[in-house]
Amino acid sequence: MTINRQIIMKTRPEGMPKHENFEIIENKIPDIRHGEVLIKILWLSLDPYMRGRMSKAKSYAASLNEGDLIVGGAVGRVINSETSQYKEGDIVEGFTLGWQEYAIATPATIRKINPELAPIQTAVGVLGMPGMTAFFGLLHVGKPIPGDTVVVSAASGAVGQLVGQIAKIAGCHVVGIAGGQEKCDFLTNSLNFDAAIDYKNENVDDMLDKYCPNGVNVYFDNVGGSITDSVINKLANYARVAVCGVISQYNLTAPESGLRTHRSMLTNQATTEGFLVFQFAQKYHIAIERIAKWIKDGKITYKEDIVEGIENAPEAFIGLMKGKNFGKLLIKVSD
Amino acid sequence: MTINRQIIMKTRPEGMPKHENFEIIENKIPDIRHGEVLIKILWLSLDPYMRGRMSKAKSYAASLNEGDLIVGGAVGRVINSETSQYKEGDIVEGFTLGWQEYAIATPATIRKINPELAPIQTAVGVLGMPGMTAFFGLLHVGKPIPGDTVVVSAASGAVGQLVGQIAKIAGCHVVGIAGGQEKCDFLTNSLNFDAAIDYKNENVDDMLDKYCPNGVNVYFDNVGGSITDSVINKLANYARVAVCGVISQYNLTAPESGLRTHRSMLTNQATTEGFLVFQFAQKYHIAIERIAKWIKDGKITYKEDIVEGIENAPEAFIGLMKGKNFGKLLIKVSD
Repeated sequence: MTINRQIIMKTRPEGMPKHENFEIIENKIPDIRHGEVLIKILWLSLDPYMRGRMSKAKSYAASLNEGDLIVGGAVGRVINSETSQYKEGDIVEGFTLGWQEYAIATPATIRKINPELAPIQTAVGVLGMPGMTAFFGLLHVGKPIPGDTVVVSAASGAVGQLVGQIAKIAGCHVVGIAGGQEKCDFLTNSLNFDAAIDYKNENVDDMLDKYCPNGVNVYFDNVGGSITDSVINKLANYARVAVCGVISQYNLTAPESGLRTHRSMLTNQATTEGFLVFQFAQKYHIAIERIAKWIKDGKITYKEDIVEGIENAPEAFIGLMKGKNFGKLLIKVSD
Repeated sequence: MTINRQIIMKTRPEGMPKHENFEIIENKIPDIRHGEVLIKILWLSLDPYMRGRMSKAKSYAASLNEGDLIVGGAVGRVINSETSQYKEGDIVEGFTLGWQEYAIATPATIRKINPELAPIQTAVGVLGMPGMTAFFGLLHVGKPIPGDTVVVSAASGAVGQLVGQIAKIAGCHVVGIAGGQEKCDFLTNSLNFDAAIDYKNENVDDMLDKYCPNGVNVYFDNVGGSITDSVINKLANYARVAVCGVISQYNLTAPESGLRTHRSMLTNQATTEGFLVFQFAQKYHIAIERIAKWIKDGKITYKEDIVEGIENAPEAFIGLMKGKNFGKLLIKVSD
């Protein structure tokens, strides 16, 4: 009997998640039934949206109950199959495989990954949900045209780094907002961003004036809160605001007041749209092909923040909520 | 020599406009030149957007300077013409004729009105800018589908009353928000709204829960501020928010903080769009035909709040800023 280590939500977090909200448990791996596959998890994806699952508040992600396995995307290897669609050794990705070492899945909940396209963990990164979010959120919601000034918050994160690079490919002037000099240097030195604003050490309003003298045409928002207030005050006419995430708000215990945005929307004839990537599911293959080609052509790079060991997932997730990660946060579960 | 009484912005209002910001002056009527017409103003339109013209802050309306004639829409009769396109007796409407008894205009800045379609003052009301705003803002920005719950603020105003009635024609459940029992009774008794919320005497949050049990699919916002905060908290998935005006904010001397909306936008995959009616100019004729037919068919009614005498325009405008008008506010300047 092989043991499956799993991480459950022991208690529901109030505000910022703490270690005590999580617990590692051990279970035996159940036998698979006809039509199922057994997957050995290799990589776990930690994403900000998962905080919503831990809350009872209305969110786009279904709520977890106390005691539930933490649900999340992962990449793994099929080690046993009772379906003709998968065989041992296949690499697969699933959005709901969860924080555990072994997962049982049906073909409807996983997809096969081509390991020759890129390193397999990109299936939960640039070639997975974060990549799709960046590609379609920028191009279909933000609708940039060449010459536009595009601002992206959480710019060195899994989604933000790709948003900025795709915006550069689309002929835009790109300004990233991130926390700390190291991240900002990475944006301008390694990712080809035109400018970066260190919200921890610079005045965001002043820097937006400096780097966006004609206003902001597209704002890809991952954070909400006061950074977003500053950007909304700098919108250009006909601006599009794509709301991908509001990580600054996920861990609040009471709603925070801030800038009312309707005046800026009206004066600028601007649009704000909240979106989930799933609406674009039928087009994912287009984005995967293009991003893979851009990576091969050297037009896009990506930074991963890799933590070893499933037992470290809670701490890494808490760090993600605080902006401690630098790049796409992954847990390496097994080789 | 005939005297032309004009109202100028004597001093720029800070906060709520006061009588002292306005002054009536008298000038002789200049002779018209080739290509121009002289118009005797019959009806002046007072609209909330005009507050923006009186401010130096960025707005969609160009700023007035101190001493300038107040610019605004009006309906009048041609009394002298030096262009073959207009003859004496023609009824015309112009968006920039201004607060005065006589105006000189060129054909590019006026349009001919058919007096048989509806009373001529509707050319600045249901068949004019407010009507176009309601029609296109609701149908093209709000995009209601039958069965949607549509909420409109300032619901008994020039735009709001029409928004609600068109939404009813479109098969929607319509909830109006207005100030005072009399206005609310008018919405439900005379305009066929399904429900009305008296924001001065009722708890808007509670009433939205009561009248919008499945959430708000379309919010047509004329007011901004705390009323809007309440509606944003009740949005349904995929909601559309059409931002037409933010009258609660026009007279603030400092920005007011309130609900941050990005979380609701994201969770509901909702869209907020600020719009000006002018983007739909090429389609105005469609709206005019349809609204005129709905009026003739008894499907749409409209309420006017008529004040006599151009000298009363400043007081009426100040009242408009405070929500004292009941229906489309008009100044009857002459017969």
